[in-house]
Amino acid sequence: MDDHLISPVDLHSPGKDQQAAGVGILLQIMMLVLSFVLGHVLRRHKFYYLPEASASLLIGLVVGGLANISDTETSIRAWFNFHEEFFFLFLLPPIILYPFQTYSGFILSPKPFFSNFGAIVTFSILGTFIASIVTGVLVYLGGVTYLMYRLPFVECMMFGALISSTDPVTVLAIFQELGTDMNLYALVFGESVLNDAVAISLYRTMSLVNSHASSGQNIFMLVLRFLETFVGSLSSGVGVGFISALISFSMTKCFFANLDSMNLFKYAGLDIDNLQNLECCLFVLFPYFSYMLAEGLGLSGIVSILFTGIVMKHYAYSNLSEKSQQFVSGFFHLISSLAETFIFIYMGLDIVMEQHSWSHVGFIFFSIICIVIARAANVFSCAYLVNFVRPSHHKIPMKHQQALWYSGLRGAMAFALALQSVHDLPEGHGQTIFTATTAIVVLTVLLIGGSTGTMLEALQVVGDTNEGHLGDGFDRNNGYLATPPDEESSSGSRFKMRLKEFHKSAPSFTSLDKNYLTPFFTTQSADEEENDDPRPSTRREGLRGRD
Amino acid sequence: MDDHLISPVDLHSPGKDQQAAGVGILLQIMMLVLSFVLGHVLRRHKFYYLPEASASLLIGLVVGGLANISDTETSIRAWFNFHEEFFFLFLLPPIILYPFQTYSGFILSPKPFFSNFGAIVTFSILGTFIASIVTGVLVYLGGVTYLMYRLPFVECMMFGALISSTDPVTVLAIFQELGTDMNLYALVFGESVLNDAVAISLYRTMSLVNSHASSGQNIFMLVLRFLETFVGSLSSGVGVGFISALISFSMTKCFFANLDSMNLFKYAGLDIDNLQNLECCLFVLFPYFSYMLAEGLGLSGIVSILFTGIVMKHYAYSNLSEKSQQFVSGFFHLISSLAETFIFIYMGLDIVMEQHSWSHVGFIFFSIICIVIARAANVFSCAYLVNFVRPSHHKIPMKHQQALWYSGLRGAMAFALALQSVHDLPEGHGQTIFTATTAIVVLTVLLIGGSTGTMLEALQVVGDTNEGHLGDGFDRNNGYLATPPDEESSSGSRFKMRLKEFHKSAPSFTSLDKNYLTPFFTTQSADEEENDDPRPSTRREGLRGRD
Repeated sequence: MDDHLISPVDLHSPGKDQQAAGVGILLQIMMLVLSFVLGHVLRRHKFYYLPEASASLLIGLVVGGLANISDTETSIRAWFNFHEEFFFLFLLPPIILYPFQTYSGFILSPKPFFSNFGAIVTFSILGTFIASIVTGVLVYLGGVTYLMYRLPFVECMMFGALISSTDPVTVLAIFQELGTDMNLYALVFGESVLNDAVAISLYRTMSLVNSHASSGQNIFMLVLRFLETFVGSLSSGVGVGFISALISFSMTKCFFANLDSMNLFKYAGLDIDNLQNLECCLFVLFPYFSYMLAEGLGLSGIVSILFTGIVMKHYAYSNLSEKSQQFVSGFFHLISSLAETFIFIYMGLDIVMEQHSWSHVGFIFFSIICIVIARAANVFSCAYLVNFVRPSHHKIPMKHQQALWYSGLRGAMAFALALQSVHDLPEGHGQTIFTATTAIVVLTVLLIGGSTGTMLEALQVVGDTNEGHLGDGFDRNNGYLATPPDEESSSGSRFKMRLKEFHKSAPSFTSLDKNYLTPFFTTQSADEEENDDPRPSTRREGLRGRD
Repeated sequence: MDDHLISPVDLHSPGKDQQAAGVGILLQIMMLVLSFVLGHVLRRHKFYYLPEASASLLIGLVVGGLANISDTETSIRAWFNFHEEFFFLFLLPPIILYPFQTYSGFILSPKPFFSNFGAIVTFSILGTFIASIVTGVLVYLGGVTYLMYRLPFVECMMFGALISSTDPVTVLAIFQELGTDMNLYALVFGESVLNDAVAISLYRTMSLVNSHASSGQNIFMLVLRFLETFVGSLSSGVGVGFISALISFSMTKCFFANLDSMNLFKYAGLDIDNLQNLECCLFVLFPYFSYMLAEGLGLSGIVSILFTGIVMKHYAYSNLSEKSQQFVSGFFHLISSLAETFIFIYMGLDIVMEQHSWSHVGFIFFSIICIVIARAANVFSCAYLVNFVRPSHHKIPMKHQQALWYSGLRGAMAFALALQSVHDLPEGHGQTIFTATTAIVVLTVLLIGGSTGTMLEALQVVGDTNEGHLGDGFDRNNGYLATPPDEESSSGSRFKMRLKEFHKSAPSFTSLDKNYLTPFFTTQSADEEENDDPRPSTRREGLRGRD
C-alpha cells in the first residue's frame, strides 16, 4: 500500500536519522538565534561595520571552522548540506518579497518610487544588461589572455548575468538607520529589486543557449527567449497579484455587506477574527502560488513572485483590515529575515567546510575587478542617459551615482543562481562559478556592507540635509520628475525627445493607476488615496520619527 | 567540492523535476485556498455539519478521486506523496502549539483551566492509560476470537496507545462558536492537549518493548521507560519555556533601561520595530528549538513542544509588547491552520489514491467499536473518581461527561503516530494499523465533527444557561474546585482523603505560580495579574462578546 512512505533514507534506522536531523536543525536554530541577538546588539550600539548579514556570515564561518577542527563533523555536515530544493522552494521566495520588507512604513510611500520610475527602469533593465555583458566579456577576455581560468563565452555570459544581481537588504537597512535622501533610497531600492528579475531572465536565456548550443547564437532568438522569460513571468506575477487584489476586495465588500444584514451581533467578534485569519492565509499563499504557477509554466518563479509582491503591496494590501496589514507585514518581515539570516549562515559554513580548490583565487580576484568595472559602466552610463533628459535642477547628483555604484553588494540571489549553475554546467565550470560567486558574496557583504555607513558619511548624503528628504519636502518638489512643459523645448535633439517620451511613461502610469486601477482593485477611491488615505498616519509617523 | 549539491533526484533533468514540484505544490496551494474559503463560507452560513476539517478531507477525497480517474496522475502522485520528514519536522510542530491556537483571548484566561487541573490530569493521564489498555486488550481479544485481523499483543497495545490521542481543534472551534460552559470547555481542551503527550509516551514505550521483545515484558522497566519519555520530554520542554521567559524578560527590561538613557530619540521608532522583529523571531524559534532538543536527546519532541508552548504562553507571552503578542498569536494561528488543513487534505488524498486492501474493513469496524467502549471506560470511570472527591455542588454533571465522551475525535496526532508505526512494524502490521487509523480519523472527523453542534444542543450545554459560564460567574463559584474545609470531614475513607490531597496540588500550584513563578519570569507582579493585569481588556472583551 504505502511503499512511498519508506524512503531509502528512512529504511536504515529511522530513529537515529530523525535524531541526527534534530541535532542538525538544533544547531541551525542556535546559530539563527545567535545571529539575531548579535545583529541586534551591534545595531543597538550603532556599530555599522558589522551589519546583520556579516554577523551571520561570520557565525557560519566560526561554527564551520569549529566543526572542521573537531573530527566528528561527518554527521553534522550531512545535515548542514541542506537540500537545494529546500533552498529554492522555501528560502528564496520570502527573500524576494522585498516590497513587504519595510520597517514601519518607511518606504510605504510609493511616490519617490514612481517619480523615479524612469531612472529605476533604466538602471535595472538597461544597466543590468550593460553590467552583465561587460562582466561576461571581461571575464572571457581574461580567460583568453590567460589572466584567469578560461571559461567558454556563453558560460562567461552566464556568470556575468548571475553576478549582476545585487542584494539591497544590508545597504537599505543602513540607509534606513542613518537616514538618507528619499530619491537615493528609491533608486537603490528600485534598482536592486528589478535587477534581480533581469539578471535571472538573462541567466536563463544564456543557460538555454548553452544547453542548445547547436542551434547557434541567433541574436533574434536570444532576445525572444529573454522576453519570453521576463515578460511571461512578469505578466503571470502581475496577473496573480491583481487576482489577489480582486479577491481581497470582494471579501472585504461581502464581509461588510453581511455585517450590515447580520442579526446576531454576538458572533461578530469571532467572525472578524476568522476573517482575519482567512485573509492572512490567502495573502500569504498568493505569492507562493504565483511562484509555483510560474515554475509550473516553465517561467521564472522568482521574477513572478517579485511582481506579485509589488502588485499586492500596491493594491491588495490596502483592502486588508489594519490588523491584518500589520500582521502580514510582520509575517513577511519575519520569514524573510529568518530565510536571509539562514542563507548567510549557510554561506559562511559552506566556505569553511567545503574543500575549495584555491586555484580559483586568481579567478575570484580578477572577477571582482571585472564586476567593479561593470558596475561603474552600468551606473555612470545610465545616469548619464537619465540626466540627459532630466531638467538641470533634477539631475542625479554625482554623489548619488557614487553611492549607487558603491551599493552593489551581491547576496542570496547571486548565490542561488550560482547553485543552479552547478547543475547547468556539470563539467566542473559550474563549480568554478559557484566558488567564485560565494567568495564574491562573502567579500562584498563583509567589505561593502561594513563600510556603507562610512561611505554615506564620506559622500555627505546622510541625514536630512538634502532636498526632498523624507516625504514632507518631497511633495513640494515632486521628486526629480515633474518636467515643466516650457523646459521641454530647450533641447532639440530627436533622441532626447524620444527618451523624454519614454520617461513620460512613468507619469502616465501614475495617472492610469490613480484613475482606473486603484479605484477598481482597492476599497479606496483615488481621492481618498490622495487626501484622507487611511494609512498616512502610519506612513507619516514612520517618516517623522526619523526627522 | 560540492558533491552534496547533486542529489540523485536532481541529476536527471533538474529543470523538469523542479517544474513537476511546482505543479504539485501549485495544486496543493489551490486545495488549501479552496479549503479555507469553503470552510469560511460554511461557517458564515452556520452550517456546522461540515466543519473546516471535514471540508478539507472532502476536498482531498474529491481531488484524489479526479486524479485517480485521469490516467496522468503518476507524476502528480509522486508530488502528493510528501516526505515523512516534512510532516514530522514542519507540519506537526505548529499543530501541537494548541495553547496559542486561541481566538481573541477566548481561553486566554487560565482560571477554568487551573481550577479543573485535577480533573484534567485525571482524564488525560489516568484516562488515556485506561483507554489505551482497554483498546489494546479489546483489539487483541478480537484477534484471538477471529472477529478481526489478529495482531500480536504488543502491537495491539501500540495501536491502543496511538488511537487514544484525541484532536480538539474541530470540536473546540464549534464550542467557541456556539458558546458553552467554561468548565466543559476547559475539560475538553485540557484533556485533549495533555492526552497527546501521554499517548505518544505510551506509544514510544510499547514500540521499544516491541523492538527489544527478547528482554521480556518486565512491568517495572515498562513504567520506567514511560516515565523516561514523559518526564524527560516534559522537563526539557518546561526548561526551554522558562529560558524563553527569562530571555524575553531580560530583553524587555534591558530595552526599557536603554530607552530611558537614550539621547537620540529619533532612532527609537526604528529600534522598537527591530526589537519587535527580534522578539518575534526568538519567540517563534523557541518552540522549534525545544522540539529539536528533545528529538536530539532521543525524547519526544511533540511532548516537549507542547509543554514549552504551555509555559511560554503563561510566562514568556506576557513579556512581549502588545503588538508582538498579537503578531505571535496570529502567526501560530496561521501556520497551525495551514498545517492542519494540509494534513486533512493529505489524508483525504491518501484514502482515495492509495490501494487499500479492503480486507481491513472488518478490522476498522471492530476497532471503532473498541475505541467507543474504551473512551467510555476512560471518561465515565475518571469522572466517577473526580466526582468522588468533589463536593456535591461541584460534581461534573452527566451531560458534561457525555459531551466529553462524544468529543473524542481522532486527528493529526493519531495519523502521525500511525505513519510512524509503518516504520516501526515493517512486517505489514504497520500498514494495517495505518489503514485502520486513517479510516478512523476520517470517519470520526466527518461523523463526530459534523454532529458536534447537534450533540451540544441535544445535551443542552449550549449557551449561557450554566453556572460558571464565561468568567464572570466563574470567580464567584471559583470553579468546581474550592473545597471548603468544613466539608472535608463529611466522608471518612482514607482513599478519598488521599485523592483530595492529590487534588489539592492544583491550588498549591496556583499559589506557587502566583507568588514565585509569575513575578520572577514576567514583567508583571502577582497583584497586577490579579487586579490590573494589562491583558484583561482583551480577555474580558473576548468573553463578553459571547454573552
